[in-house]
Amino acid sequence: MSDFTGNHILSVNQFDREAIEKVFSVADSMQPYAKRQKRTTVLEGAILGNLFFEPSTRTRVSFGTAFNLLGGEVRETTGMASSALAKGESLYDTARVLSGYSDIIAMRHPAAGSVAEFAEGSRVPVINGGDGANEHPTQALLDLFTIKRELEYHGHGIDGLHIAMIGDLRYGRTVHSLSRLLCLFKNVRFTLISPKELAMPQPIIDTIENAGHQLNITETLEGSMDADICYQTRIQEERFPSQEEANKYRGKFRLNHSIYTRHFQSKTVIMHPLPRDSRIEANELDNDLNLNPNLAIFRQTDNGVLVRMALFALTLGVEELLTKYEREVVWFSNKSNELHAKI
Amino acid sequence: MSDFTGNHILSVNQFDREAIEKVFSVADSMQPYAKRQKRTTVLEGAILGNLFFEPSTRTRVSFGTAFNLLGGEVRETTGMASSALAKGESLYDTARVLSGYSDIIAMRHPAAGSVAEFAEGSRVPVINGGDGANEHPTQALLDLFTIKRELEYHGHGIDGLHIAMIGDLRYGRTVHSLSRLLCLFKNVRFTLISPKELAMPQPIIDTIENAGHQLNITETLEGSMDADICYQTRIQEERFPSQEEANKYRGKFRLNHSIYTRHFQSKTVIMHPLPRDSRIEANELDNDLNLNPNLAIFRQTDNGVLVRMALFALTLGVEELLTKYEREVVWFSNKSNELHAKI
Amino acid sequence: MSDFTGNHILSVNQFDREAIEKVFSVADSMQPYAKRQKRTTVLEGAILGNLFFEPSTRTRVSFGTAFNLLGGEVRETTGMASSALAKGESLYDTARVLSGYSDIIAMRHPAAGSVAEFAEGSRVPVINGGDGANEHPTQALLDLFTIKRELEYHGHGIDGLHIAMIGDLRYGRTVHSLSRLLCLFKNVRFTLISPKELAMPQPIIDTIENAGHQLNITETLEGSMDADICYQTRIQEERFPSQEEANKYRGKFRLNHSIYTRHFQSKTVIMHPLPRDSRIEANELDNDLNLNPNLAIFRQTDNGVLVRMALFALTLGVEELLTKYEREVVWFSNKSNELHAKI
Repeated sequence: MSDFTGNHILSVNQFDREAIEKVFSVADSMQPYAKRQKRTTVLEGAILGNLFFEPSTRTRVSFGTAFNLLGGEVRETTGMASSALAKGESLYDTARVLSGYSDIIAMRHPAAGSVAEFAEGSRVPVINGGDGANEHPTQALLDLFTIKRELEYHGHGIDGLHIAMIGDLRYGRTVHSLSRLLCLFKNVRFTLISPKELAMPQPIIDTIENAGHQLNITETLEGSMDADICYQTRIQEERFPSQEEANKYRGKFRLNHSIYTRHFQSKTVIMHPLPRDSRIEANELDNDLNLNPNLAIFRQTDNGVLVRMALFALTLGVEELLTKYEREVVWFSNKSNELHAKI
Repeated sequence: MSDFTGNHILSVNQFDREAIEKVFSVADSMQPYAKRQKRTTVLEGAILGNLFFEPSTRTRVSFGTAFNLLGGEVRETTGMASSALAKGESLYDTARVLSGYSDIIAMRHPAAGSVAEFAEGSRVPVINGGDGANEHPTQALLDLFTIKRELEYHGHGIDGLHIAMIGDLRYGRTVHSLSRLLCLFKNVRFTLISPKELAMPQPIIDTIENAGHQLNITETLEGSMDADICYQTRIQEERFPSQEEANKYRGKFRLNHSIYTRHFQSKTVIMHPLPRDSRIEANELDNDLNLNPNLAIFRQTDNGVLVRMALFALTLGVEELLTKYEREVVWFSNKSNELHAKI
Repeated sequence: MSDFTGNHILSVNQFDREAIEKVFSVADSMQPYAKRQKRTTVLEGAILGNLFFEPSTRTRVSFGTAFNLLGGEVRETTGMASSALAKGESLYDTARVLSGYSDIIAMRHPAAGSVAEFAEGSRVPVINGGDGANEHPTQALLDLFTIKRELEYHGHGIDGLHIAMIGDLRYGRTVHSLSRLLCLFKNVRFTLISPKELAMPQPIIDTIENAGHQLNITETLEGSMDADICYQTRIQEERFPSQEEANKYRGKFRLNHSIYTRHFQSKTVIMHPLPRDSRIEANELDNDLNLNPNLAIFRQTDNGVLVRMALFALTLGVEELLTKYEREVVWFSNKSNELHAKI
């Protein structure tokens, strides 16, 4: 994948290392626009069809904001109930019709494979915003972009990275996609920590091993480790075969200040795909870490805007034109925090 | 109706032939903007109130896109649950309030007559986006505009047209409104094909006959005919008095490649109000016609954008100013197909 | 509160008289933009996050329109079902994430105190669009702004005003907040008319009395009075301890032409927070008053746009820059009525 213009973004498998580096380079250049130091109108008049057949407030708003930040307009739909799909229309027909209403489409749909099927009928580029259990490529890209930026802050790159992934590695599509992307880099060390019922699927394990990376698999968080990144996910207890089984692991995958201090280095970056459940019975990531400067979870969502801006600019072929259409920022703006690796 | 500026668009009955030709002439001029060869900002700063008290993804998005394509902004509402109407507010009050929030309104509502009632309280022009069983004038206009463009491609006009309407002619408001509009033209031939339970209502029949047009009524599709347009609609089996009665007609109103070849000329244009039900038990328009260049169903929805752009431009009095506010199209654009009668 | 720039607007208690006069002065200057005599693009490129976790069509659209009228873009969400809040995310996390997607936020949420809690996590200014039983400060400001403008038309100011508040003074948060704001002015006379079950809460009574204003409390509308403003609210019969109790008051708090003529001066201004229930059994404000020029209810909602424009301009620090970014109004515009105190 060397040229993005006019192409769909459906899967992390489309990306080679060069393509990823291109996306990240453009995403970096988006920073002053997202931070409101500058403004660009390069997509003025362009229309994003933001089609969320499965609702998701933050992903939907993130796509819409990214498009607005480049100067474009957004037409949206949320849910399936009022759509023709609910009346038996094929994804092909829906795509043919709705692609007549916009210049590019971001789409989420609960069925695996649906976005790719839709893309076949679309007359404009389609970006996958999540198709059920299958893929959510912009999440994987924003995760990897966050890793890149956090490590840059510490003076090194993704090659040679040590990442610990914790929790539900079986059903969490974010850790699957992120692992596939990391396999495009060199000498990555994976430490996978999960109950055996929720272990990383074998095809991902194979991919990691075939790429020649180091792999360490354990069932609980023990000892201390020199991970650069601690990627935490949520465990839902109903996924265990029995409550007894769930009880065995209770508390073994939670993360709070004391657990963090015991098992990780003082500079280990903490990530999570969000939302985190703040109710006491879940609490996979405690609020007592909120002031820890290594907590990168809100930098992840901020980075999501940069990555989506980059994908829009690349698929619409304007990544070189941003500065040409710059405009003054007139209003009060104070959004500098969270956009750096550290405040 | 000679001047559109500041007026509501509530019913096909408002239109005489001159008015229709005006709309179509402006719709034609919208093509380069919708195809993204050019861009206009003539409605920059104007606000459309896109009020869909009954949800309809494609009609809502089509109106919104049409307004964006002229440079305007869109404020939207979908459904009735959270509106004051649900709390007993009159349509008059709702109109007085919401018309203070926009420069023009497109509105859909499930109750027949509701949009006209709303328009009486509105301080800005209102365009009917469908009021229940009553009217959906922009659909009728886009259907007729499609007929005009398809016939132009074959070198002739609407006068002298032969149209076959098939299926549920009793409950389908699109065929009613389209018939009324066609009566404004000369020497039209109507072939109406439907089970007698779903026959065209007598008032429409009277209108057709009073206008001096030719009329042929049959219960099933038989023999071959020289129709220029085959307008197919959906039959819902539950509308028959009994399943036995429904079974009698099963398959008689479906359309696929083999049926089309048997009954129609090779240049007969196929239309349908969409969505078509692609489930096997419905299938009123088979996917095996998808590559037939006469299948105009997606050109219909594309034309809907042009017609709605034209109505916005006319009611807001800017139809002469489009070129004055032209701007460059900067981004990748490849939307040429479907906008012509043929690719 | 002397400088608004970068600050949240959470409560009427933030405002002193000087701050209110500042808001009203800026709101006055918004008139030509809202009336479409002029247009400004001062907020071009800015993004409003219009977060309505509790749906409310008119308040949501009013905020969105106000932002569009200043040239800005709007990203929206409606309802809680698809938000991360429903999955146990804290308001703090939601605020940290969503404030990364916009330059300013307007927020409604059903829980009292939620908007202030959200504001603590937000990195951009937050305007309270209603937090349950607690506050709805923009409604109180638009009510007071309407009073100011209506009285100006009659040649005097808010000081010395006589206001009658009628109906449910216990649960109606609009009359509570309005009373608090009126206490910042001089020599106000309050006539409070409600069944004792629905009387104004004691803390508000105390505030009025401590401010040294005149207070007259009655249970039914009797005799004639020289009120400048009659602020009517809805009584819901289910709020009485028994139907018998409700029957005792039935009709005592309704307002129609004949009741108005009997109890008020010919110039008394009629206000209502809207929506009014037009069903015969409710009918707290009869349609036979619709042509009375003193009926200010639709001027209230129009004024709401001006007040919200003023708050956006002040919190984003552009209130001095409106004229610098003026643009031509190209399209048909005829919105002059309702924006004056009288037509």
